[in-house]
Amino acid sequence: MQLHGYYRSSASWRVRIALNLKGVHANSVAHHLRKGEQHAADFLRLNPQGLVPALTLDDGTTLTQSLAIIEWLDETHPRPPLLPTDPLRRAQVRAFAQAIACDIHPVQNLKVLSRLRQLGLAEDQVTGWAAWVIGDGLKACETLIANESGPFCFGADPTLADICLVPQLFNARRFGVDLAPYPRLLRAERAAQAVAAFADAAPERQPDAE
Amino acid sequence: MQLHGYYRSSASWRVRIALNLKGVHANSVAHHLRKGEQHAADFLRLNPQGLVPALTLDDGTTLTQSLAIIEWLDETHPRPPLLPTDPLRRAQVRAFAQAIACDIHPVQNLKVLSRLRQLGLAEDQVTGWAAWVIGDGLKACETLIANESGPFCFGADPTLADICLVPQLFNARRFGVDLAPYPRLLRAERAAQAVAAFADAAPERQPDAE
Repeated sequence: MQLHGYYRSSASWRVRIALNLKGVHANSVAHHLRKGEQHAADFLRLNPQGLVPALTLDDGTTLTQSLAIIEWLDETHPRPPLLPTDPLRRAQVRAFAQAIACDIHPVQNLKVLSRLRQLGLAEDQVTGWAAWVIGDGLKACETLIANESGPFCFGADPTLADICLVPQLFNARRFGVDLAPYPRLLRAERAAQAVAAFADAAPERQPDAE
Repeated sequence: MQLHGYYRSSASWRVRIALNLKGVHANSVAHHLRKGEQHAADFLRLNPQGLVPALTLDDGTTLTQSLAIIEWLDETHPRPPLLPTDPLRRAQVRAFAQAIACDIHPVQNLKVLSRLRQLGLAEDQVTGWAAWVIGDGLKACETLIANESGPFCFGADPTLADICLVPQLFNARRFGVDLAPYPRLLRAERAAQAVAAFADAAPERQPDAE
Protein backbone atom coordinates (compact mmCIF):
# COMPACT_ATOMS: atom_id res chain seq x y z
CA MET A 1 0.00 0.00 0.00
CA GLN A 2 1.30 3.46 -0.89
CA LEU A 3 0.08 6.71 0.62
CA HIS A 4 0.64 9.64 -1.74
CA GLY A 5 0.79 12.72 0.43
CA TYR A 6 2.62 15.80 1.60
CA TYR A 7 3.83 16.33 5.14
CA ARG A 8 1.84 19.54 5.71
CA SER A 9 -1.35 18.57 3.83
CA SER A 10 -4.22 18.39 6.33
CA ALA A 11 -6.05 15.75 4.33
CA SER A 12 -2.95 13.52 4.03
CA TRP A 13 -2.39 13.97 7.76
CA ARG A 14 -5.93 12.66 8.46
CA VAL A 15 -5.21 9.46 6.55
CA ARG A 16 -1.86 9.03 8.33
CA ILE A 17 -3.64 9.19 11.69
CA ALA A 18 -6.28 6.68 10.58
CA LEU A 19 -3.66 4.24 9.24
CA ASN A 20 -1.73 4.51 12.52
CA LEU A 21 -4.86 3.94 14.62
CA LYS A 22 -5.63 0.82 12.59
CA GLY A 23 -2.02 -0.40 12.69
CA VAL A 24 -1.91 -0.52 8.88
CA HIS A 25 1.38 0.28 7.17
CA ALA A 26 1.56 2.23 3.92
CA ASN A 27 4.74 3.36 2.21
CA SER A 28 4.88 7.13 2.03
CA VAL A 29 5.25 8.78 -1.40
CA ALA A 30 5.74 12.53 -1.06
CA HIS A 31 4.47 15.03 -3.63
CA HIS A 32 5.74 18.55 -2.96
CA LEU A 33 2.60 20.68 -3.25
CA ARG A 34 4.38 24.05 -3.28
CA LYS A 35 6.51 22.83 -6.20
CA GLY A 36 3.31 21.70 -7.97
CA GLU A 37 4.22 18.02 -8.10
CA GLN A 38 0.53 17.11 -7.65
CA HIS A 39 -0.04 18.39 -11.20
CA ALA A 40 2.46 15.96 -12.78
CA ALA A 41 0.91 13.70 -15.46
CA ASP A 42 1.94 10.55 -13.59
CA PHE A 43 0.11 11.68 -10.48
CA LEU A 44 -2.97 12.90 -12.36
CA ARG A 45 -3.33 9.35 -13.71
CA LEU A 46 -3.71 8.23 -10.08
CA ASN A 47 -5.90 11.14 -8.98
CA PRO A 48 -7.41 13.35 -11.69
CA GLN A 49 -8.19 15.94 -8.99
CA GLY A 50 -4.46 16.58 -8.57
CA LEU A 51 -4.87 16.52 -4.80
CA VAL A 52 -3.29 14.51 -2.03
CA PRO A 53 -3.88 12.12 -0.37
CA ALA A 54 -4.32 9.14 -2.66
CA LEU A 55 -3.95 5.60 -1.41
CA THR A 56 -2.75 2.98 -3.89
CA LEU A 57 -3.68 -0.54 -2.85
CA ASP A 58 -1.60 -3.63 -3.56
CA ASP A 59 -3.84 -4.54 -6.51
CA GLY A 60 -3.08 -1.17 -8.12
CA THR A 61 -6.43 0.50 -7.37
CA THR A 62 -6.06 4.06 -6.13
CA LEU A 63 -8.51 5.55 -3.65
CA THR A 64 -8.92 9.32 -3.33
CA GLN A 65 -10.56 11.80 -0.92
CA SER A 66 -9.41 11.51 2.68
CA LEU A 67 -12.85 10.84 4.21
CA ALA A 68 -13.66 8.14 1.65
CA ILE A 69 -10.27 6.52 2.26
CA ILE A 70 -10.80 6.57 6.03
CA GLU A 71 -14.30 5.08 5.76
CA TRP A 72 -12.86 2.34 3.49
CA LEU A 73 -10.19 1.66 6.07
CA ASP A 74 -12.82 1.51 8.81
CA GLU A 75 -14.94 -0.92 6.81
CA THR A 76 -12.05 -3.22 5.88
CA HIS A 77 -10.16 -3.01 9.20
CA PRO A 78 -12.92 -2.64 11.81
CA ARG A 79 -10.74 -2.48 14.95
CA PRO A 80 -10.54 0.01 16.56
CA PRO A 81 -13.67 1.64 15.11
CA LEU A 82 -13.38 5.23 13.88
CA LEU A 83 -17.16 5.75 13.95
CA PRO A 84 -19.72 4.84 16.65
CA THR A 85 -22.17 1.99 15.93
CA ASP A 86 -25.40 3.94 16.48
CA PRO A 87 -26.57 5.59 13.21
CA LEU A 88 -27.47 8.86 14.95
CA ARG A 89 -24.06 9.11 16.60
CA ARG A 90 -22.36 8.16 13.34
CA ALA A 91 -24.22 11.04 11.68
CA GLN A 92 -23.05 13.47 14.36
CA VAL A 93 -19.41 12.40 14.06
CA ARG A 94 -19.58 12.56 10.27
CA ALA A 95 -21.24 15.99 10.36
CA PHE A 96 -18.47 17.36 12.59
CA ALA A 97 -15.82 15.86 10.28
CA GLN A 98 -17.54 17.33 7.22
CA ALA A 99 -17.90 20.74 8.85
CA ILE A 100 -14.09 20.72 8.69
CA ALA A 101 -13.43 18.66 5.56
CA CYS A 102 -16.06 20.38 3.41
CA ASP A 103 -16.64 23.84 4.85
CA ILE A 104 -13.28 24.85 6.30
CA HIS A 105 -10.31 23.14 4.73
CA PRO A 106 -11.11 23.30 0.98
CA VAL A 107 -11.94 27.01 1.29
CA GLN A 108 -8.51 27.84 2.70
CA ASN A 109 -6.24 25.33 1.00
CA LEU A 110 -3.17 26.15 -1.07
CA LYS A 111 -5.09 26.18 -4.36
CA VAL A 112 -7.70 28.70 -3.18
CA LEU A 113 -5.19 31.01 -1.50
CA SER A 114 -3.01 30.99 -4.62
CA ARG A 115 -6.03 31.99 -6.71
CA LEU A 116 -6.81 34.87 -4.35
CA ARG A 117 -3.25 36.14 -4.85
CA GLN A 118 -3.64 35.85 -8.62
CA LEU A 119 -6.78 37.97 -8.40
CA GLY A 120 -4.70 40.73 -6.86
CA LEU A 121 -5.45 40.37 -3.17
CA ALA A 122 -2.69 41.52 -0.84
CA GLU A 123 -0.95 39.06 1.45
CA ASP A 124 -2.78 40.33 4.55
CA GLN A 125 -6.09 39.89 2.75
CA VAL A 126 -5.17 36.33 1.84
CA THR A 127 -4.18 35.52 5.42
CA GLY A 128 -7.35 37.26 6.60
CA TRP A 129 -9.41 35.07 4.27
CA ALA A 130 -7.93 31.89 5.74
CA ALA A 131 -8.37 33.15 9.30
CA TRP A 132 -12.01 34.11 8.57
CA VAL A 133 -12.86 30.69 7.12
CA ILE A 134 -11.14 28.80 9.92
CA GLY A 135 -12.42 30.93 12.82
CA ASP A 136 -15.98 30.87 11.54
CA GLY A 137 -15.88 27.11 11.09
CA LEU A 138 -14.22 26.32 14.41
CA LYS A 139 -16.79 28.42 16.25
CA ALA A 140 -19.52 26.13 14.92
CA CYS A 141 -17.44 23.02 15.68
CA GLU A 142 -17.00 24.17 19.30
CA THR A 143 -20.80 24.42 19.63
CA LEU A 144 -21.37 21.03 17.95
CA ILE A 145 -19.48 19.24 20.75
CA ALA A 146 -20.06 21.66 23.63
CA ASN A 147 -22.23 19.13 25.46
CA GLU A 148 -20.11 16.08 24.68
CA SER A 149 -18.43 14.61 27.75
CA GLY A 150 -15.14 13.82 25.98
CA PRO A 151 -12.26 13.94 26.37
CA PHE A 152 -12.25 13.31 22.62
CA CYS A 153 -14.75 15.09 20.37
CA PHE A 154 -17.30 12.32 20.75
CA GLY A 155 -16.60 10.21 23.82
CA ALA A 156 -13.75 8.32 25.37
CA ASP A 157 -12.05 7.21 22.16
CA PRO A 158 -10.82 8.99 19.03
CA THR A 159 -13.12 9.06 16.00
CA LEU A 160 -13.14 10.53 12.51
CA ALA A 161 -13.99 13.85 14.18
CA ASP A 162 -10.68 14.03 16.08
CA ILE A 163 -8.84 12.88 12.95
CA CYS A 164 -10.16 15.96 11.13
CA LEU A 165 -9.83 18.35 14.07
CA VAL A 166 -6.12 17.96 14.87
CA PRO A 167 -4.75 18.99 11.44
CA GLN A 168 -7.27 21.84 11.23
CA LEU A 169 -6.10 23.31 14.55
CA PHE A 170 -2.52 23.16 13.27
CA ASN A 171 -3.65 25.10 10.22
CA ALA A 172 -5.50 27.58 12.42
CA ARG A 173 -2.29 28.42 14.27
CA ARG A 174 -0.39 28.86 11.00
CA PHE A 175 -2.86 31.59 10.05
CA GLY A 176 -2.80 33.24 13.46
CA VAL A 177 -6.32 32.25 14.55
CA ASP A 178 -6.92 32.82 18.27
CA LEU A 179 -7.97 29.43 19.67
CA ALA A 180 -8.83 30.65 23.19
CA PRO A 181 -12.59 30.75 22.39
CA TYR A 182 -12.56 27.01 21.65
CA PRO A 183 -11.71 25.24 24.93
CA ARG A 184 -13.67 22.11 24.08
CA LEU A 185 -11.80 21.69 20.78
CA LEU A 186 -8.48 22.22 22.56
CA ARG A 187 -9.42 19.57 25.13
CA ALA A 188 -10.06 17.05 22.35
CA GLU A 189 -6.75 18.03 20.74
CA ARG A 190 -4.87 17.42 24.01
CA ALA A 191 -6.48 13.98 24.33
CA ALA A 192 -5.49 13.16 20.76
CA GLN A 193 -1.93 14.37 21.12
CA ALA A 194 -1.41 11.89 23.96
CA VAL A 195 -2.12 9.03 21.54
CA ALA A 196 0.93 7.76 19.63
CA ALA A 197 -1.10 7.25 16.41
CA PHE A 198 -1.79 11.00 16.35
CA ALA A 199 1.66 12.12 17.48
CA ASP A 200 3.45 9.94 14.91
CA ALA A 201 1.32 11.39 12.10
CA ALA A 202 2.37 15.00 12.76
CA PRO A 203 3.95 16.86 9.82
CA GLU A 204 7.34 17.34 11.47
CA ARG A 205 7.75 13.57 11.85
CA GLN A 206 7.29 12.82 8.15
CA PRO A 207 10.24 11.98 5.87
CA ASP A 208 9.47 14.92 3.56
CA ALA A 209 9.22 17.51 6.38
CA GLU A 210 11.27 20.64 5.70
CA MET B 1 -39.38 14.91 10.34
CA GLN B 2 -38.55 18.44 9.15
CA LEU B 3 -36.10 19.31 6.40
CA HIS B 4 -34.73 22.82 6.83
CA GLY B 5 -33.63 23.95 3.41
CA TYR B 6 -33.78 26.43 0.57
CA TYR B 7 -35.06 25.63 -2.89
CA ARG B 8 -31.84 26.54 -4.70
CA SER B 9 -29.36 25.21 -2.13
CA SER B 10 -27.39 22.35 -3.73
CA ALA B 11 -26.88 20.61 -0.41
CA SER B 12 -30.60 20.78 0.50
CA TRP B 13 -31.41 19.46 -2.96
CA ARG B 14 -29.17 16.43 -2.36
CA VAL B 15 -31.14 15.53 0.77
CA ARG B 16 -34.46 16.02 -1.02
CA ILE B 17 -33.39 13.52 -3.68
CA ALA B 18 -32.26 11.00 -1.06
CA LEU B 19 -35.52 11.31 0.91
CA ASN B 20 -37.52 10.83 -2.30
CA LEU B 21 -35.47 7.78 -3.32
CA LYS B 22 -36.12 6.24 0.10
CA GLY B 23 -39.79 7.18 0.09
CA VAL B 24 -39.36 9.08 3.37
CA HIS B 25 -41.48 12.19 3.90
CA ALA B 26 -40.13 15.29 5.66
CA ASN B 27 -42.00 18.56 6.04
CA SER B 28 -40.18 21.34 4.26
CA VAL B 29 -39.11 24.39 6.28
CA ALA B 30 -37.68 27.10 4.02
CA HIS B 31 -34.93 29.49 5.11
CA HIS B 32 -34.31 32.23 2.56
CA LEU B 33 -30.54 32.28 2.21
CA ARG B 34 -30.33 35.54 0.27
CA LYS B 35 -32.29 37.25 3.03
CA GLY B 36 -29.90 35.75 5.60
CA GLU B 37 -32.51 33.71 7.43
CA GLN B 38 -29.94 30.98 8.06
CA HIS B 39 -28.24 33.36 10.52
CA ALA B 40 -31.36 33.75 12.71
CA ALA B 41 -30.80 32.76 16.36
CA ASP B 42 -33.55 30.13 16.21
CA PHE B 43 -31.91 28.40 13.28
CA LEU B 44 -28.39 28.65 14.74
CA ARG B 45 -29.67 26.68 17.72
CA LEU B 46 -30.49 23.87 15.28
CA ASN B 47 -27.32 24.21 13.20
CA PRO B 48 -24.50 26.34 14.62
CA GLN B 49 -22.93 26.38 11.15
CA GLY B 50 -25.82 28.52 9.89
CA LEU B 51 -26.10 26.37 6.78
CA VAL B 52 -28.88 24.36 5.20
CA PRO B 53 -29.84 21.56 5.10
CA ALA B 54 -30.63 20.44 8.63
CA LEU B 55 -32.94 17.51 9.30
CA THR B 56 -34.92 17.57 12.56
CA LEU B 57 -36.08 14.11 13.60
CA ASP B 58 -39.31 13.39 15.45
CA ASP B 59 -37.41 13.11 18.76
CA GLY B 60 -36.10 16.65 18.29
CA THR B 61 -32.55 15.72 17.32
CA THR B 62 -31.22 17.78 14.41
CA LEU B 63 -28.76 16.30 11.93
CA THR B 64 -26.56 18.55 9.79
CA GLN B 65 -24.29 18.21 6.74
CA SER B 66 -25.94 16.76 3.66
CA LEU B 67 -23.60 13.78 3.22
CA ALA B 68 -23.90 12.79 6.89
CA ILE B 69 -27.70 13.07 6.68
CA ILE B 70 -27.79 10.92 3.53
CA GLU B 71 -25.55 8.24 5.06
CA TRP B 72 -27.81 8.23 8.17
CA LEU B 73 -30.82 7.80 5.91
CA ASP B 74 -29.08 4.96 4.06
CA GLU B 75 -28.22 3.21 7.33
CA THR B 76 -31.71 3.56 8.83
CA HIS B 77 -33.70 2.98 5.60
CA PRO B 78 -31.57 0.50 3.63
CA ARG B 79 -33.81 0.13 0.55
CA PRO B 80 -32.96 1.16 -2.10
CA PRO B 81 -29.26 1.44 -1.22
CA LEU B 82 -27.48 4.69 -2.03
CA LEU B 83 -24.02 3.10 -1.79
CA PRO B 84 -22.73 -0.20 -3.21
CA THR B 85 -21.99 -3.05 -0.78
CA ASP B 86 -18.34 -3.63 -1.75
CA PRO B 87 -16.02 -1.43 0.37
CA LEU B 88 -13.86 -0.49 -2.62
CA ARG B 89 -16.88 0.58 -4.69
CA ARG B 90 -18.29 2.45 -1.71
CA ALA B 91 -15.00 4.34 -1.48
CA GLN B 92 -15.17 5.26 -5.16
CA VAL B 93 -18.74 6.52 -4.92
CA ARG B 94 -17.95 8.48 -1.75
CA ALA B 95 -14.81 9.97 -3.33
CA PHE B 96 -16.80 11.21 -6.32
CA ALA B 97 -19.45 12.67 -4.01
CA GLN B 98 -16.79 14.36 -1.90
CA ALA B 99 -14.99 15.74 -4.96
CA ILE B 100 -18.19 17.74 -5.40
CA ALA B 101 -19.34 18.23 -1.80
CA CYS B 102 -15.90 19.18 -0.44
CA ASP B 103 -13.87 20.55 -3.33
CA ILE B 104 -16.41 22.24 -5.58
CA HIS B 105 -19.56 23.36 -3.84
CA PRO B 106 -18.23 24.96 -0.61
CA VAL B 107 -15.68 26.97 -2.62
CA GLN B 108 -18.38 28.57 -4.77
CA ASN B 109 -21.32 28.85 -2.40
CA LEU B 110 -23.20 32.03 -1.54
CA LYS B 111 -21.05 32.74 1.53
CA VAL B 112 -17.75 32.56 -0.33
CA LEU B 113 -18.94 34.59 -3.32
CA SER B 114 -20.33 37.29 -1.00
CA ARG B 115 -16.96 37.49 0.73
CA LEU B 116 -15.19 37.91 -2.60
CA ARG B 117 -17.47 40.87 -3.38
CA GLN B 118 -16.72 42.37 0.04
CA LEU B 119 -13.01 42.13 -0.76
CA GLY B 120 -13.61 44.33 -3.78
CA LEU B 121 -13.72 41.83 -6.62
CA ALA B 122 -15.82 42.86 -9.61
CA GLU B 123 -18.89 40.86 -10.57
CA ASP B 124 -17.19 39.22 -13.56
CA GLN B 125 -14.31 38.16 -11.32
CA VAL B 126 -16.78 36.60 -8.85
CA THR B 127 -18.59 34.73 -11.63
CA GLY B 128 -15.20 33.73 -13.04
CA TRP B 129 -14.20 32.35 -9.64
CA ALA B 130 -17.29 30.12 -9.49
CA ALA B 131 -16.81 28.98 -13.09
CA TRP B 132 -13.14 28.17 -12.39
CA VAL B 133 -13.93 26.10 -9.30
CA ILE B 134 -16.77 24.23 -10.99
CA GLY B 135 -15.05 23.59 -14.33
CA ASP B 136 -11.86 22.40 -12.66
CA GLY B 137 -13.81 20.05 -10.40
CA LEU B 138 -16.12 18.66 -13.07
CA LYS B 139 -13.14 17.89 -15.30
CA ALA B 140 -11.80 15.59 -12.58
CA CYS B 141 -15.26 14.09 -11.98
CA GLU B 142 -15.59 13.27 -15.69
CA THR B 143 -12.31 11.33 -15.52
CA LEU B 144 -13.28 9.54 -12.30
CA ILE B 145 -16.22 7.85 -14.03
CA ALA B 146 -14.94 7.77 -17.64
CA ASN B 147 -14.67 3.97 -17.57
CA GLU B 148 -17.91 3.33 -15.67
CA SER B 149 -20.55 1.62 -17.79
CA GLY B 150 -23.45 3.62 -16.37
CA PRO B 151 -25.88 4.98 -17.23
CA PHE B 152 -25.64 6.47 -13.72
CA CYS B 153 -22.29 7.58 -12.33
CA PHE B 154 -21.60 4.14 -10.88
CA GLY B 155 -23.73 1.48 -12.51
CA ALA B 156 -27.36 0.83 -13.31
CA ASP B 157 -28.85 2.57 -10.27
CA PRO B 158 -28.50 6.00 -8.71
CA THR B 159 -26.07 6.42 -5.82
CA LEU B 160 -24.78 9.19 -3.61
CA ALA B 161 -22.62 10.23 -6.58
CA ASP B 162 -25.62 11.08 -8.78
CA ILE B 163 -27.28 12.81 -5.83
CA CYS B 164 -24.33 15.20 -5.64
CA LEU B 165 -23.83 15.53 -9.39
CA VAL B 166 -27.29 16.74 -10.44
CA PRO B 167 -27.41 19.91 -8.29
CA GLN B 168 -23.79 20.70 -9.16
CA LEU B 169 -24.54 20.64 -12.89
CA PHE B 170 -27.46 23.02 -12.29
CA ASN B 171 -25.04 25.34 -10.52
CA ALA B 172 -22.56 25.00 -13.35
CA ARG B 173 -25.13 26.28 -15.85
CA ARG B 174 -26.01 29.21 -13.57
CA PHE B 175 -22.39 30.31 -13.76
CA GLY B 176 -22.11 29.77 -17.51
CA VAL B 177 -19.80 26.75 -17.40
CA ASP B 178 -19.58 24.95 -20.76
CA LEU B 179 -20.61 21.35 -20.07
CA ALA B 180 -19.80 19.98 -23.54
CA PRO B 181 -16.44 18.54 -22.34
CA TYR B 182 -18.26 16.33 -19.82
CA PRO B 183 -20.40 13.86 -21.83
CA ARG B 184 -20.19 11.12 -19.21
CA LEU B 185 -21.49 13.45 -16.49
CA LEU B 186 -24.31 14.61 -18.77
CA ARG B 187 -25.23 10.99 -19.47
CA ALA B 188 -25.57 10.32 -15.74
CA GLU B 189 -27.63 13.50 -15.36
CA ARG B 190 -30.04 12.38 -18.11
CA ALA B 191 -30.46 9.00 -16.41
CA ALA B 192 -31.18 10.73 -13.11
CA GLN B 193 -33.64 13.22 -14.58
CA ALA B 194 -35.77 10.31 -15.80
CA VAL B 195 -36.26 9.19 -12.18
CA ALA B 196 -39.18 10.84 -10.38
CA ALA B 197 -37.24 11.07 -7.10
CA PHE B 198 -34.75 13.36 -8.84
CA ALA B 199 -37.26 15.32 -10.89
CA ASP B 200 -39.50 16.03 -7.87
CA ALA B 201 -36.53 17.37 -5.90
CA ALA B 202 -35.69 20.08 -8.46
CA PRO B 203 -35.61 23.68 -7.15
CA GLU B 204 -38.50 24.89 -9.30
CA ARG B 205 -40.80 22.28 -7.77
CA GLN B 206 -40.23 23.40 -4.18
CA PRO B 207 -42.81 25.47 -2.28
CA ASP B 208 -40.33 28.32 -1.69
CA ALA B 209 -39.24 28.54 -5.36
CA GLU B 210 -39.25 32.11 -6.66
